[in-house]
Amino acid sequence: MAQQGILRFRHLLTPDGMVHDRQVIVGADGRIKRVEPADGGPWDGWLSLPGMPNAHSHVFQRALAGYGEARVSGEDSFWSWREAMYRVAARITPEQLHDIALHGFIDMLRAGFTSVAEFHYLHHLPDGSRSTAMAEAVIEAAKAAGIRLRLLPVAYFHSGFGMQPPLEGQKRFVHRDIDEFLRLLEQLADACPGIAPHSLRAVPAQWLNDLVRGAGEILGDAFPVHIHIAEQQREVEDCLAAHGRTPMRLLADAVDLDARWQLVHATHASNEEIDTIAAHGAGVVICPITEAYLGDGLFNAVRFRERGGSLAIGSDSNCRIDAFEELRLLEYGQRLREQRRARLGTGKGLGAPLWLHSVAAGANALVMPCHGIAPGEYADFVVINETADALAGHAADSALDALVINGSRNDVSAVYVAGRRVIDNGQHSLQGRARDSFHEVVRALITA
Amino acid sequence: MAQQGILRFRHLLTPDGMVHDRQVIVGADGRIKRVEPADGGPWDGWLSLPGMPNAHSHVFQRALAGYGEARVSGEDSFWSWREAMYRVAARITPEQLHDIALHGFIDMLRAGFTSVAEFHYLHHLPDGSRSTAMAEAVIEAAKAAGIRLRLLPVAYFHSGFGMQPPLEGQKRFVHRDIDEFLRLLEQLADACPGIAPHSLRAVPAQWLNDLVRGAGEILGDAFPVHIHIAEQQREVEDCLAAHGRTPMRLLADAVDLDARWQLVHATHASNEEIDTIAAHGAGVVICPITEAYLGDGLFNAVRFRERGGSLAIGSDSNCRIDAFEELRLLEYGQRLREQRRARLGTGKGLGAPLWLHSVAAGANALVMPCHGIAPGEYADFVVINETADALAGHAADSALDALVINGSRNDVSAVYVAGRRVIDNGQHSLQGRARDSFHEVVRALITA
Repeated sequence: MAQQGILRFRHLLTPDGMVHDRQVIVGADGRIKRVEPADGGPWDGWLSLPGMPNAHSHVFQRALAGYGEARVSGEDSFWSWREAMYRVAARITPEQLHDIALHGFIDMLRAGFTSVAEFHYLHHLPDGSRSTAMAEAVIEAAKAAGIRLRLLPVAYFHSGFGMQPPLEGQKRFVHRDIDEFLRLLEQLADACPGIAPHSLRAVPAQWLNDLVRGAGEILGDAFPVHIHIAEQQREVEDCLAAHGRTPMRLLADAVDLDARWQLVHATHASNEEIDTIAAHGAGVVICPITEAYLGDGLFNAVRFRERGGSLAIGSDSNCRIDAFEELRLLEYGQRLREQRRARLGTGKGLGAPLWLHSVAAGANALVMPCHGIAPGEYADFVVINETADALAGHAADSALDALVINGSRNDVSAVYVAGRRVIDNGQHSLQGRARDSFHEVVRALITA
Repeated sequence: MAQQGILRFRHLLTPDGMVHDRQVIVGADGRIKRVEPADGGPWDGWLSLPGMPNAHSHVFQRALAGYGEARVSGEDSFWSWREAMYRVAARITPEQLHDIALHGFIDMLRAGFTSVAEFHYLHHLPDGSRSTAMAEAVIEAAKAAGIRLRLLPVAYFHSGFGMQPPLEGQKRFVHRDIDEFLRLLEQLADACPGIAPHSLRAVPAQWLNDLVRGAGEILGDAFPVHIHIAEQQREVEDCLAAHGRTPMRLLADAVDLDARWQLVHATHASNEEIDTIAAHGAGVVICPITEAYLGDGLFNAVRFRERGGSLAIGSDSNCRIDAFEELRLLEYGQRLREQRRARLGTGKGLGAPLWLHSVAAGANALVMPCHGIAPGEYADFVVINETADALAGHAADSALDALVINGSRNDVSAVYVAGRRVIDNGQHSLQGRARDSFHEVVRALITA
């Protein structure tokens, strides 16, 4: 649904920095043909940023935002939250998933995300029977919303290190073996999939090479491999107990880490492990809002970036979806870790380098041409008006710093995906209906 | 400018919890006469929360939001930021301060804050000459915006422990002695002042009792005493070096800590010190967004609340003004400290207990009757529409959890201060003009 045409912006954040009074020529394939001085036609917006890839999402968890916050005991943790999440996961139908995903994807677009890697483990029907209906619900919702989807079917076999049998709450996620998982992948081959071995708890390290090789026979070469790793201290401890090595070490020993590998969270990676990831060119996907929401901890992002690491962002649990707040919390988490200021910026400021890096890293993580506003990349734009609340007192040269420190999703005026305007005046054309359906599904799933 | 009348809400968050279909009778003094079942007249809003007191603000620092974010060296810190702040403070005129404050106070109202404790240290004119013009600029701006002001003239004498002489950058803040400070306080006695000894760096501990006694002779009994304390590790270390005690210990030994004392930040208070503060009934004012922005660190709020401590919130540097995001970051900071979930809520959830406590603690900190929606308190309301983005999937019973996890200033529909509507449809009547003036002042002060 791309649209050929010309889009004119007063200010444009390109990989080389801010340029002014430009027009972008968009081809019929939705990609940028060239960026050139504007021809005097009407402006399509004041400031255009490259659309942000959302490199890690479980969209169905959007239904849980604002639920499960009562303090049950002093020991509330990731693991008690996971039980609540499993209760929802056990019941959700394909139709309900579609409605949650449509609302969630619209929420992402309004928040500055123009593509999404959906880490999809809700495979089977509620009774456990095999079907592609759940994945198709996600695919259809992304199409209807107009967000670009990288579907990551999750490989999930066990409930813990040492090949522990799956829990009842995991029965919709699990496949018997690699072959059964690959049959699903084959059925979804037209839907732009990659693969996501869930974690080393769920997939034995020694199965990973067979899994990736099998996926390669179906998908060719250009697909990403995402894995949850070292999100929780307990995961690190359990892995040490079972294998005498940390999960990061176990992974690095088992596979040939390279740029296709995306390590989601990596919260408790040691300094040495961070250096190893960066040296191999594997990426890290950090999800600052969710990692705070779940009390995971703070990844040493400063070190990873200083080693040249590629650091993408993801909205993960979708408890709050906001590309600006994700970057703010990413930067502030580092400030709190080190009790210093100005951690992830450069001499050129904080916001522009951080936004540009996160976009390019996100495109790497999705293996998609949406690295920024340059020829050959998708025409994905997030447009900010001069009148945005965060920009009081600012001109274009400091706008990105103002947006990361003081901005939010509500400063987004328009959003384009592959040259097509999907958000106008902050709104999506399906927003009202999608909200009503979402509301009904949440009431049925959670509060009924 | 109070307004007698009846305000009707579908849902009302009272100190006893959520009630439904109520009307609030507001007296000519702007206070609540009673809350009773609604009489069938038109609704004034869907959900009404008590207005949040902003217990710590330096409003002029709003001009710095989004500036000074370049990474100059690996050592960027609170202290390098303070130099940038001093450069602005040295130049600002009363007219410029008025324009920044008007914009800032409007920003606070739109963000859910209905009263503000302004920790005001910009006393003298740029050339150092004595005047009340700077304080009057703040007072006038608060009146024009319609926010309730508690002005806290700051007592500031020295630049460091051991009575070090003030720095050039502090010349507009400092008085020669207590008497000179008290003469200013006398001149401002009609403007609802309290006092704020800046910190133990700026006011010797052995001067505090004279200062408070002198202020009492001017202000009577009902005024608050606010002090910055233990915000930075270096402050703790310098105090240990100079006095052999931490700042918290030095303070607790020097004065009779009681409920009038509000300890701002207290970031690096030890567990024992936290217990001491709580046992004395002194309050703590935490500023989560600014404390992250400046890389201060994380106060042990869980312990302080478990000991019965009164914990108010403040927007401090005003780099981002949002009562919802402050509470989210307060809770998330605790989750990250402890690697647990659900820290500051109760069995009744997170948002409602946290909002209610912060309102009551804020009223304590301001020494003002704005403790919540109950007879005798000011009729300060923050109204949220059913259609707010954060409330998709939620009814009134879980609305506060949804707002703290997934809400923002942009979910505020209307705001009332003392019964008068100052924000309507998210907007303030002076907003456009105030923004334009603010923009000009910032350009002149910072980027010119």
